[in-house]
Amino acid sequence: MITLGHGAGGMLTRRLIETRFLSRLKSPALSSLLDSAVLGDLALTTDAYVVSPMIFPGGDLGRLALCGTVNDLAMVGATPVGIAAAFILEEGLSEETLDGVVQSMAEAAEEARVEVVAGDTKVVPRGACDGMFITTSGVGRLHESFSPRPSAITPGDAILVSGTIADHGMAVMSAREGLSISGAVMSDVAPLNHLVSRLRGFSSGIRALRDPTRGGLAATANELAEAAELTLVLQEPAIPVRPSTRTACELFGIDPLHVANEGKLVAVVSDEVKNDVIQTLRDHPLGRHAALIGEVAPGKPRVELDTALGTRRVVRLPQGEILPRIC
Amino acid sequence: MITLGHGAGGMLTRRLIETRFLSRLKSPALSSLLDSAVLGDLALTTDAYVVSPMIFPGGDLGRLALCGTVNDLAMVGATPVGIAAAFILEEGLSEETLDGVVQSMAEAAEEARVEVVAGDTKVVPRGACDGMFITTSGVGRLHESFSPRPSAITPGDAILVSGTIADHGMAVMSAREGLSISGAVMSDVAPLNHLVSRLRGFSSGIRALRDPTRGGLAATANELAEAAELTLVLQEPAIPVRPSTRTACELFGIDPLHVANEGKLVAVVSDEVKNDVIQTLRDHPLGRHAALIGEVAPGKPRVELDTALGTRRVVRLPQGEILPRIC
Repeated sequence: MITLGHGAGGMLTRRLIETRFLSRLKSPALSSLLDSAVLGDLALTTDAYVVSPMIFPGGDLGRLALCGTVNDLAMVGATPVGIAAAFILEEGLSEETLDGVVQSMAEAAEEARVEVVAGDTKVVPRGACDGMFITTSGVGRLHESFSPRPSAITPGDAILVSGTIADHGMAVMSAREGLSISGAVMSDVAPLNHLVSRLRGFSSGIRALRDPTRGGLAATANELAEAAELTLVLQEPAIPVRPSTRTACELFGIDPLHVANEGKLVAVVSDEVKNDVIQTLRDHPLGRHAALIGEVAPGKPRVELDTALGTRRVVRLPQGEILPRIC
Repeated sequence: MITLGHGAGGMLTRRLIETRFLSRLKSPALSSLLDSAVLGDLALTTDAYVVSPMIFPGGDLGRLALCGTVNDLAMVGATPVGIAAAFILEEGLSEETLDGVVQSMAEAAEEARVEVVAGDTKVVPRGACDGMFITTSGVGRLHESFSPRPSAITPGDAILVSGTIADHGMAVMSAREGLSISGAVMSDVAPLNHLVSRLRGFSSGIRALRDPTRGGLAATANELAEAAELTLVLQEPAIPVRPSTRTACELFGIDPLHVANEGKLVAVVSDEVKNDVIQTLRDHPLGRHAALIGEVAPGKPRVELDTALGTRRVVRLPQGEILPRIC
C-alpha cells in the first residue's frame, strides 16, 4: 500500500520510484533523476503541487507551482522556453480562491520572465480532491558551455548554498498548525533562473546545481553524493538558518536539514571559483545569504556532517513521513 | 463557485478559461487554445487525467494519460521529443493498482514509440484525492512543411473523422454505472502520432487536425468553426457510430456528438486531397472507419448538422455537466 512516507522525498520515495516506475518506464533520461530530463539541447520537467494549506506566509500554490518548474529547469542550466500548467479543481472551490492562485502564478511568471503557454483544467466532484492541485511542466533550452551535472563533481570541490534553509517547509507547517510564530516564518519560494543565469560565465567551474526541495538539504546532498560517487562533508555551523525558522524546527522536532526549500539552490563548484561564485550569488537579492557549507572528499557516496558540537555524523536520506504536502 | 460543468469541456469550461485564466496569464500561445502551444519549432502540451473508474473497457488511466498527450502533440503536427508524467497518489492505494497503471502507460509509450523521460510522485492523505490522478505533458518538434492550424481552414474544405465516435466516453460511463452492455462498448484510447505522420505528405492540404476529446465532436467542430470564422456543415448519417455505443448513448440519453473520444481525429482538408486522405487513413488500423462527414461553408462561425430526418439544426457547445471525469 502507498503511504504518506512514499511522498516525502526520502528513502521511501526513492524506493517507490525505483521499484514501481523505473522498472517499467525504461528511459535513460528518467533514470538519471536529474531535476529536468535532458533531451539533446532541450530540458523537460514536471511536478505536481498539492501543498496544504494552499496559501501560506510568503506564497501560495500558484507561485509555488510556477517557481518549482522554473527552478527545475534552471538546475540543469536550461533557459525556460515555456511553462504548462494543469489545474485539478474540486467542485465547490470559490472563484475567488482560484483567481488568487492564478493571479499569483501570473505574477511569479512575470518575475521569472517566463510565459505560461499551455494549460488544462479539470473539475472533480466534492471530496475527490482537496481544493486544488496544480501540475506544472516546463521546457527549456540548454546552453552548450553550461551544463552542470552531478557526475562532474570532483574531490576538493566546494559546496555552497544560496541562502537560509528550511524556510518554506516551516512556513507551510506553521500555517497548517496555526503556530503563533507563523508571521515570522516565511516561505522562500522564488524563481531562481536569473540567479543561475549569472553563474553561466563560470562554465564548467559550476559542477552541479540542485534545489533542495522535498527532503531538504539532507536529501539533496545524498543525491549529489550518490550521483558523484563521492563523500560530501558539510559544516553544520556554516549552514544558514533563520532564527525564527530554527525555533519552528525545534518546536516541531524536525531537523532543518530535512525541511523543503523552494527558493534556494545548492551549488557544487570548483575550489578555484568558489569565492567568486559566492560573491556573484550575494550580489543578487535571492543569494544575499549565500554561504560555503562544505566540501567534496574522496570516499564512499555519503554525506557527513561536522556538527556544532564538534562531532561528525552521517546524514542519511529522510526515512519516512516527515512533512506531507509541503509542496 | 466551481461546478462540475466547468470541467465538462463545453461552454462553462470555455468561460472559466477565458475569465479566470486567460485574463491573468496573458500569452498568445495560451490564448490560441490549440491542442499544444506552438513555440517556434517546439510544441508543448499538458493535460490532467482524473478518469473514474481508473480502469475501463479498452484502457486505463495510464494508457489514457500517455495517449492524450501524444495526440495533443500530433494535432499541431509535432513529433514527440519526450513525455513527462506527474502522479498524485492517495494514501492507501494498492501497489498492484499503481503497477497496472504504470505498466499500461509503459506499453502505450512503446506503441507510440515515445519515452517517458521525466516524472514526479506526490502522495496525499486518504480522502484528499480519489485514488490516483496523472498529469502528462509533452514536448514535440514541429515540421516546417506541415503545420495544420484551424486558421488555415477555407470554404469548400472537407471535414473527415478517422473512425467511430463516442466510444471512449460511453465505455467509461458504462463501466462506472455497471451497465450490462459494457463488454461491448470499448474505449478507443490510442496514440495517433503514427497515423498523423502518414498525413504529413499532404502538407498544406491538411488544414487542421483536432482530437475530439472532452465535449466530443460537437465541441471540436465549434472550436474549429470559431477559429476559422466559418460555418461547418456536418452530415449526421455520415458520422460513424458503433451500434453498441449508440445503444449506450440512447440508454444514457446523451447525444454521441457530445461524447469524448481518445483515439480519433477530426481533419479538415482541402477538397482536392480529401479522397486520398480518407484512403490513407483507412490504410492504417486506427483509421479503418475514416469517413467524410461534412464540409466548410462561408458564413457565421457555427456548426450546422443535416440530420437523418432531413432537417438542419445548429450544434452548440455542450452547455453544462454531461459526463464528469471521463478523462
